Amino acid sequence: MQRRNAFYAQSGGVTAVINASACGVIQTARANPDRIANVLAGRNGIIGALTEDLIDTSGESDTAIEGLRYTPSGAFGSCRYKLKNVEESLAEYERILAVFEAHDIGYFFYNGGGDSQDTTNKIAQLSEQRGYPLNCIGIPKTVDNDLPITDNCPGFGSVAKYVAVSIREAGYDVASMAKTSTKVFVMEVMGRHAGWIAAAGGLAQERDGDAPHLILFPEIEFDEDKFIKRVNECVEAYGYCAIVVSEGLRDPTGKFVADAGIRDAFGHDQLGGVAPVIANLIKQRLGLKYHWAVADYLQRAARHIASKTDVEQAYQLGCAAVEMALAGKSALMPTIERLADEPYKWQIGEARLEDVANVEKMMPRDFITADGFGITPQCRRYLSPLIAGEDYPPFKNGLPDYTRLQNLSVKKRLTTDFVLG
Amino acid sequence: MQRRNAFYAQSGGVTAVINASACGVIQTARANPDRIANVLAGRNGIIGALTEDLIDTSGESDTAIEGLRYTPSGAFGSCRYKLKNVEESLAEYERILAVFEAHDIGYFFYNGGGDSQDTTNKIAQLSEQRGYPLNCIGIPKTVDNDLPITDNCPGFGSVAKYVAVSIREAGYDVASMAKTSTKVFVMEVMGRHAGWIAAAGGLAQERDGDAPHLILFPEIEFDEDKFIKRVNECVEAYGYCAIVVSEGLRDPTGKFVADAGIRDAFGHDQLGGVAPVIANLIKQRLGLKYHWAVADYLQRAARHIASKTDVEQAYQLGCAAVEMALAGKSALMPTIERLADEPYKWQIGEARLEDVANVEKMMPRDFITADGFGITPQCRRYLSPLIAGEDYPPFKNGLPDYTRLQNLSVKKRLTTDFVLG
Repeated sequence: MQRRNAFYAQSGGVTAVINASACGVIQTARANPDRIANVLAGRNGIIGALTEDLIDTSGESDTAIEGLRYTPSGAFGSCRYKLKNVEESLAEYERILAVFEAHDIGYFFYNGGGDSQDTTNKIAQLSEQRGYPLNCIGIPKTVDNDLPITDNCPGFGSVAKYVAVSIREAGYDVASMAKTSTKVFVMEVMGRHAGWIAAAGGLAQERDGDAPHLILFPEIEFDEDKFIKRVNECVEAYGYCAIVVSEGLRDPTGKFVADAGIRDAFGHDQLGGVAPVIANLIKQRLGLKYHWAVADYLQRAARHIASKTDVEQAYQLGCAAVEMALAGKSALMPTIERLADEPYKWQIGEARLEDVANVEKMMPRDFITADGFGITPQCRRYLSPLIAGEDYPPFKNGLPDYTRLQNLSVKKRLTTDFVLG
Repeated sequence: MQRRNAFYAQSGGVTAVINASACGVIQTARANPDRIANVLAGRNGIIGALTEDLIDTSGESDTAIEGLRYTPSGAFGSCRYKLKNVEESLAEYERILAVFEAHDIGYFFYNGGGDSQDTTNKIAQLSEQRGYPLNCIGIPKTVDNDLPITDNCPGFGSVAKYVAVSIREAGYDVASMAKTSTKVFVMEVMGRHAGWIAAAGGLAQERDGDAPHLILFPEIEFDEDKFIKRVNECVEAYGYCAIVVSEGLRDPTGKFVADAGIRDAFGHDQLGGVAPVIANLIKQRLGLKYHWAVADYLQRAARHIASKTDVEQAYQLGCAAVEMALAGKSALMPTIERLADEPYKWQIGEARLEDVANVEKMMPRDFITADGFGITPQCRRYLSPLIAGEDYPPFKNGLPDYTRLQNLSVKKRLTTDFVLG
């Protein structure tokens, strides 16, 4: 068999475990030196391919690559850069193939969400049309958990765990203070379109009265009066009320509640922050003392409290991607197939990229309670295994000892520059 | 020797490790059954003493008490309720002594910050004046780290660790996204009067260019132009800028920047949130894409990432308090005495409550760099050992398995109710 190079790139918002997938890719490539000469990584994702800004991973020690398994963020840099369809952006697709050809890339691994799977699919099609041999495999990643077919998306389980752990801890805190101080706590979490992350907060509630008492989902139109009534009932019943709110919460007109008129002194709109809006509303309507938190990037970067299940799945998907490519497959994405809920059993499956691209997996309505403020037993059954297990990184001087790669550049072989659109 | 009861209460904002002190108190009391019959805890702190709302800890199993060591929050409830001086609030002090006498309390342990140490001292004085035998020992606790004499305050080390871990993780995240997306990240941390917690974020910076690039301290008047210039320089040099800002940051007129005119659509002031103010400012002045986080209670409740040093010190201080009382001492607070920085060595010392009460330990100016945006080597030497070591709680179903006490009430013995002031 021919010995060729592989190209790997990270795409979109990074996660606590996307580097675990990178670790799986590179380790599996290194285990097949007769087939894969080297893994070249895109510096800052697909931009690295477009600008021929490639990272030579052969310079990284096995220890450094092993360290990717427990290092959050995107070790090679990621980007938010969406390639349009082939007709509109032909020059970009052709450029990618030109760079691949110049560096003898025979395997393309693209680690990202729905858009990235779509891009991978288009590159697979174009390379086939052009007769350029290239095995294209997408690797799923997104904290939003919105890819179809796969049981879940790497990155999500760790955010889910962070959110559930955090609201449990904050719930304990507020419960002890409520008699004379804070009675309402509002925690904002990610998820602009779907409530998967907000739902995960619900896992912290083991018995009636536990935090979180209320969850505000993007799927459920915000009903202010109903919500305020429930907050008041919680405070009466339990002495306090802990709330998880999705950044994607919308009012009855479809507008994000986060955009509902927060302005600074100069009248500028202030971006983000649905938690302060909700907290302020409670203050105005009920006069209760509140605190609020916005976890933002902390939730998706929190490798220190990553889900062991999530880390393992991310890693295995990286390994599987390389194995699939080496088996001659293309235009596929390895998936997680759930075999059993409890004890949780899963295996790696395969999905065609054309079936993955541009399909968003929304949360089923029956995962949300009828009143719209909680999760159902079905939802709990689905989510529970995804946060199972801890996988602590090594620590040094009290801090996680995350890997830093050298990220040495591969010498350019093309003479033309490429200007990004 | 006479066998009497002990009274223990938690005061003020709770922490990840105040229950570890409670664990030390109760375990040491149980180890001395010939001297201490039972530990009665105040339900919701000193309010429990005033209203004779006492918790019978003898009903809790040894396992449950051991669980306090790894359970955040205040297991018996805390309160924000400051007793005034004896002249103004004589009725309250007399009520406490009456409740103590009714329940044969011979040992008083009050776990809190500066105000609580002051209260403990006043009760010690009054009980002596009245000839009521009572050994009064304060146990230090405050995330603000502002008590004098003691090397540090239990609760602080764990917040410090959370903040340093979080800004490191978020820094890695932003570094990977900065090419095409977020270039500035702002993380707000606690500390209204002193920058101890903000300073702890600086521990994440191991080398030049690491997050956090800038720290905004309450001790340093906010100079907008200078700050914006530095943000811009960081983005030029490193591609991104990660900032830790203290909630106590003040503008040149002395006003909290957090209060600097954030209003909702109805014109109401919006409480809290210096991070969005700073982020918005950067957006307006530099046009850079930003994200911001407000950790709020998450930081002080984060037992899952507590400092092992902090847990151990909190526990030992609880043990020492009981031992001091049993040795006949009163009007004292056990302290942490630092013997060496590296390797860190410490022992338990003693301070007179009158020397602790009403003295705030501020951060030395030479702990902050000359430019006002970072920490000095002295500061690092002081802080580093306080975040050392991990002390993970047990997990069940992917979540920390924190203890829940039964908190059974002691039967009232007084016939009069007490109305809180």
